[in-house]
Amino acid sequence: MKKLRCGVIGLGRVGKMHFENMRHIPEMDIVAVSDFFIDKMDDWLSKMNIHHAYQNYHDLLARKDIDAVFIFTSTDMHEEIVIAAAKAGKHIFCEKPLSMDIDEEAALNVLRAVKAQGVKLQIAFNRRFDPQFRELHNMVCQGQIGQPQMVKISSRDPDLLPHDLIKRIGGLIFDFTMHDFDMARFIMQDEITEVYVKGNTLIDPTLQEIDDVDTLAIVLSFAKGGYGLIDNSRRAVYGYDQRVEVFGSEGMACADNVSESTVRYYDKDNCHMKNPLPDFTVRYRTAYLTEVNLFIQAILHDEPVVCTGEDALLAQRVAIAAQQSLKQGKPIKVPTGTFL
Amino acid sequence: MKKLRCGVIGLGRVGKMHFENMRHIPEMDIVAVSDFFIDKMDDWLSKMNIHHAYQNYHDLLARKDIDAVFIFTSTDMHEEIVIAAAKAGKHIFCEKPLSMDIDEEAALNVLRAVKAQGVKLQIAFNRRFDPQFRELHNMVCQGQIGQPQMVKISSRDPDLLPHDLIKRIGGLIFDFTMHDFDMARFIMQDEITEVYVKGNTLIDPTLQEIDDVDTLAIVLSFAKGGYGLIDNSRRAVYGYDQRVEVFGSEGMACADNVSESTVRYYDKDNCHMKNPLPDFTVRYRTAYLTEVNLFIQAILHDEPVVCTGEDALLAQRVAIAAQQSLKQGKPIKVPTGTFL
Amino acid sequence: MKKLRCGVIGLGRVGKMHFENMRHIPEMDIVAVSDFFIDKMDDWLSKMNIHHAYQNYHDLLARKDIDAVFIFTSTDMHEEIVIAAAKAGKHIFCEKPLSMDIDEEAALNVLRAVKAQGVKLQIAFNRRFDPQFRELHNMVCQGQIGQPQMVKISSRDPDLLPHDLIKRIGGLIFDFTMHDFDMARFIMQDEITEVYVKGNTLIDPTLQEIDDVDTLAIVLSFAKGGYGLIDNSRRAVYGYDQRVEVFGSEGMACADNVSESTVRYYDKDNCHMKNPLPDFTVRYRTAYLTEVNLFIQAILHDEPVVCTGEDALLAQRVAIAAQQSLKQGKPIKVPTGTFL
Amino acid sequence: MKKLRCGVIGLGRVGKMHFENMRHIPEMDIVAVSDFFIDKMDDWLSKMNIHHAYQNYHDLLARKDIDAVFIFTSTDMHEEIVIAAAKAGKHIFCEKPLSMDIDEEAALNVLRAVKAQGVKLQIAFNRRFDPQFRELHNMVCQGQIGQPQMVKISSRDPDLLPHDLIKRIGGLIFDFTMHDFDMARFIMQDEITEVYVKGNTLIDPTLQEIDDVDTLAIVLSFAKGGYGLIDNSRRAVYGYDQRVEVFGSEGMACADNVSESTVRYYDKDNCHMKNPLPDFTVRYRTAYLTEVNLFIQAILHDEPVVCTGEDALLAQRVAIAAQQSLKQGKPIKVPTGTFL
Repeated sequence: MKKLRCGVIGLGRVGKMHFENMRHIPEMDIVAVSDFFIDKMDDWLSKMNIHHAYQNYHDLLARKDIDAVFIFTSTDMHEEIVIAAAKAGKHIFCEKPLSMDIDEEAALNVLRAVKAQGVKLQIAFNRRFDPQFRELHNMVCQGQIGQPQMVKISSRDPDLLPHDLIKRIGGLIFDFTMHDFDMARFIMQDEITEVYVKGNTLIDPTLQEIDDVDTLAIVLSFAKGGYGLIDNSRRAVYGYDQRVEVFGSEGMACADNVSESTVRYYDKDNCHMKNPLPDFTVRYRTAYLTEVNLFIQAILHDEPVVCTGEDALLAQRVAIAAQQSLKQGKPIKVPTGTFL
Repeated sequence: MKKLRCGVIGLGRVGKMHFENMRHIPEMDIVAVSDFFIDKMDDWLSKMNIHHAYQNYHDLLARKDIDAVFIFTSTDMHEEIVIAAAKAGKHIFCEKPLSMDIDEEAALNVLRAVKAQGVKLQIAFNRRFDPQFRELHNMVCQGQIGQPQMVKISSRDPDLLPHDLIKRIGGLIFDFTMHDFDMARFIMQDEITEVYVKGNTLIDPTLQEIDDVDTLAIVLSFAKGGYGLIDNSRRAVYGYDQRVEVFGSEGMACADNVSESTVRYYDKDNCHMKNPLPDFTVRYRTAYLTEVNLFIQAILHDEPVVCTGEDALLAQRVAIAAQQSLKQGKPIKVPTGTFL
Repeated sequence: MKKLRCGVIGLGRVGKMHFENMRHIPEMDIVAVSDFFIDKMDDWLSKMNIHHAYQNYHDLLARKDIDAVFIFTSTDMHEEIVIAAAKAGKHIFCEKPLSMDIDEEAALNVLRAVKAQGVKLQIAFNRRFDPQFRELHNMVCQGQIGQPQMVKISSRDPDLLPHDLIKRIGGLIFDFTMHDFDMARFIMQDEITEVYVKGNTLIDPTLQEIDDVDTLAIVLSFAKGGYGLIDNSRRAVYGYDQRVEVFGSEGMACADNVSESTVRYYDKDNCHMKNPLPDFTVRYRTAYLTEVNLFIQAILHDEPVVCTGEDALLAQRVAIAAQQSLKQGKPIKVPTGTFL
Repeated sequence: MKKLRCGVIGLGRVGKMHFENMRHIPEMDIVAVSDFFIDKMDDWLSKMNIHHAYQNYHDLLARKDIDAVFIFTSTDMHEEIVIAAAKAGKHIFCEKPLSMDIDEEAALNVLRAVKAQGVKLQIAFNRRFDPQFRELHNMVCQGQIGQPQMVKISSRDPDLLPHDLIKRIGGLIFDFTMHDFDMARFIMQDEITEVYVKGNTLIDPTLQEIDDVDTLAIVLSFAKGGYGLIDNSRRAVYGYDQRVEVFGSEGMACADNVSESTVRYYDKDNCHMKNPLPDFTVRYRTAYLTEVNLFIQAILHDEPVVCTGEDALLAQRVAIAAQQSLKQGKPIKVPTGTFL
């Protein structure tokens, strides 16, 4: 069997989760890893049977026996590492976004470097690979919904994040809502042309100190005339709330939350069921595996990747417009021109 | 508008419930009522605007301005009143069963009297008129289920009945399970040929003093080779549990319990929904109205009634066999020959 | 029993539906009716057993034996008739809105007249009386949701209306979305301070000729910091889609669509269930009865009505701001000051 | 990490499925495999990276570097191989039943051999390890259901099996219903004392040639007075139907079928959802992994296994009584005495 030889850069919570999923994929060998805090990870490295581990990601990129790298560092490192990996001739799997700059020039630099080196870049918009949301996407593509007129996304995290983490990953819109912007594009099969955002600190007022919010209500306008509604919260006490609905001229389809059990329990008071799955690691376990598997297949068979750097840039453009709308209290146009 | 002139005999809990539903039906006038305890009902009679009320039902039957009677007395009076009503030339709407005799001769006498006088007799197997169970019945009749192979009925009361009431209405099998026998016939469109019954007093052991049980598990065999499973309980703490499922060669259809609300409430512990409706008066409100309306239409347009005395007798035969099976601990054949 | 003597003005589709529901309410007598096209309604008047019917509503208002009037005319007549009824000393039950003027002065005139005459005025925001939405409202009032942070309303009609009817009842926002503005206030227990509206003609482009739209996406801002999202469509092919969800610091509750049956049918392809109820007459049948019963009780026992002229004015203010937002492409503040 | 060194005997459909699940379990090494048709499996052995493969299972048992064996052969080989494995001092994981003899002596011989050698034996009643059914079991154990009074099991296969396969694995009751007997014991936490079985060939009449049926309806009686109802079919056109419900004095809990998606699709006709998962390999994937993991843990930490040879024998006793009931048309007592 042909195998892809890989390196993993970034072994924080998300990186470790990905690693533990990925190591069972038969079509890949994980040759080496890199993390800034690698010194403190001896136990985990030993348990995972990892033989090559670097503090400096350049050492990993310098290995000739690595075909592709997975980048799971915090957002503020994406731009630098993706460019270095492209220059080292590695195929790249990277978490969104490509950069945290409000100016999209940094993201464009990344895309140009990737293009110049001819490597493949797949962006980890993991929700696209969720079987339920993919089913909605397919229904739209196959015409079962007719002309899509409205997409609705409820996306609520189970709890607040630490402020210092938020600073590194970019605030609610860049860290969280950007997934919803990508999902809206993915479901509607259309480009977002305008965004209007209202936001507030209803859960943690001290978020204002770091210029962030915990609650968002958003209207999107699409090029073909449809609309999108997004609501976000940093704290849903009942779990990780991830629902998508699409409405069109021929019907409506909605993907509800997933719970671990269909069991219903009736006592003298009520009927009780399990809450939604508690967080992204369990909710999107299948999606995380699927996105990696598809990336490997795309490289092994030299096919296009299914979620591209352009997708990242287009979602980022909406996020930048959304930030402006939130600050300025008015709808903001999203630029739609070409970029490279 | 042509109206049916009616009398109501028996104004206990069920009789009053029926009366309060029926008085809004525009195609009928309730001319008179009768109840053994009519002396104590002045307030209710006044509130319901009833002008003619008798203690002796014969006085009601003697009125020439009454076309049809509704009999809601306790079961032990059915035989006598139905025969008297038939002889008085009234059309008859009567609760099941026709008699409480373990011997079906009494029931046959009733049917013969009705036939001899040429009046119409409709039996109040109310569950047949529930929109959900009727939908299952229609699916079977239209072939959507294919050849029906299995019917499953869960039928559980919300709480125990007083022992003296049980004595008058006939024990769990005669009062309660008989509805399920009728439902099984109605759904399968087939005759029950054998019944096997296990029963116990898991809720109220003192029921043994009146030779009754509170819990039943039953297997039915049908003439065309299919089967039925029934489970009964006198006390479901979560409400009135009434579910039917039919399985066949082309598919399966199931009617779940009805609750008053679709609202789901998610808190930090669970998702909570409303329990099933609490008792038969609310669960079958629509069915009670529908059965009366169809009876009125059958008389006004001289059409066959939809639930006949023969249906009552056939369900009663199964009930009699079920009683024997429970006592004898073995399966009992149900006689299938003609009867009049 | 004390009965309320009533008159009904306006016997179009909605008026007739109300009449046929109301005539069974024991606490009211419908003394007389009025409709501009009364000449053509002989059959219906006879079937309904109505003895006093006028073309000119002033003739009805002139009757001394009428305590209260129900106004079901088209919106453009509300202002004139409510003022006349108030001056005639009748209590008033009126469909929303109080007027179609973009200027709220007309609505204020109505409220002033009602106040001056000391009569009661209840507005028929029927959805408030739906048992499911009332359950959500009660959960918020009792604190089960905690601080409400987001209300989401999906409200979609089953099909387009004729253009000439739209002209009389006021376009999508005035005819339809106004119910959602009232629902948002009712659920959040808070006032709307800003509205942002996007709208389009995705179903019927010729609506542009009468300056209307068929699709709306709306963000509401509330005084206490929460938000609302509303989506509307004139045509949901699967029925009348009416859902509300409220999210807060302690939980989330959602009211799903109501269908006529819980039956699930599984064949070789899929599991199939009934669509939502098809239109407002069946979806809100209980709500229509409840709102009338509560109005009658409020008059008979001289209690406050539960949905007031002020509620109508506040929803209308949002509707006026929404119209401006749709035209101007920007968020519009909703005036919050007192008004009488 | 301490690892268990294992061998796998039997690589038919079920054996391969287990193997492909098990090879990712980090706590085990699969040292060798054995199958009668091993000559024809070169491709699969190579793909699975298996280095030691035998046609004769005795060669596998002879290896000193194997601690435990997994037996996935057809039922008719269980008795012989389990005894040989026990004598070789291997811990044993074996599919049910222990033998196909109507006489339980053969099964007792197996249990005696296991006991004499002091090895552990776990029976693969996989459904016990399904998270949903385990949740029901836990609810009963924790008292949430109160005194359990009724268990209901619907268990329907998606399609008929070839007759020659049926001959080797033992007919509907031994191959299929035995799982339900075990589930009934597991849920009720009680012993089955009597069984009554009705069965028929409603799908494939030629099954009569091999003395088998395709449809069963069963009543179980339990020692503490509760009951069980089981219905089986060889062909549910809508998928693999696996549902369990338990009813008791304090409430009811039911585990519904699992489908791959929560997506609901509404078109002009109906609301459509996905059917249940199609077969046991996907429906019980988690259960298959869990049962193996728990077996490994029991050996590594020398703890009792969770599903024992005694459980197998007790389910088999019910199956034997069930066969007799089916033939004789009457209820049959299940022996409850001790056995070793």
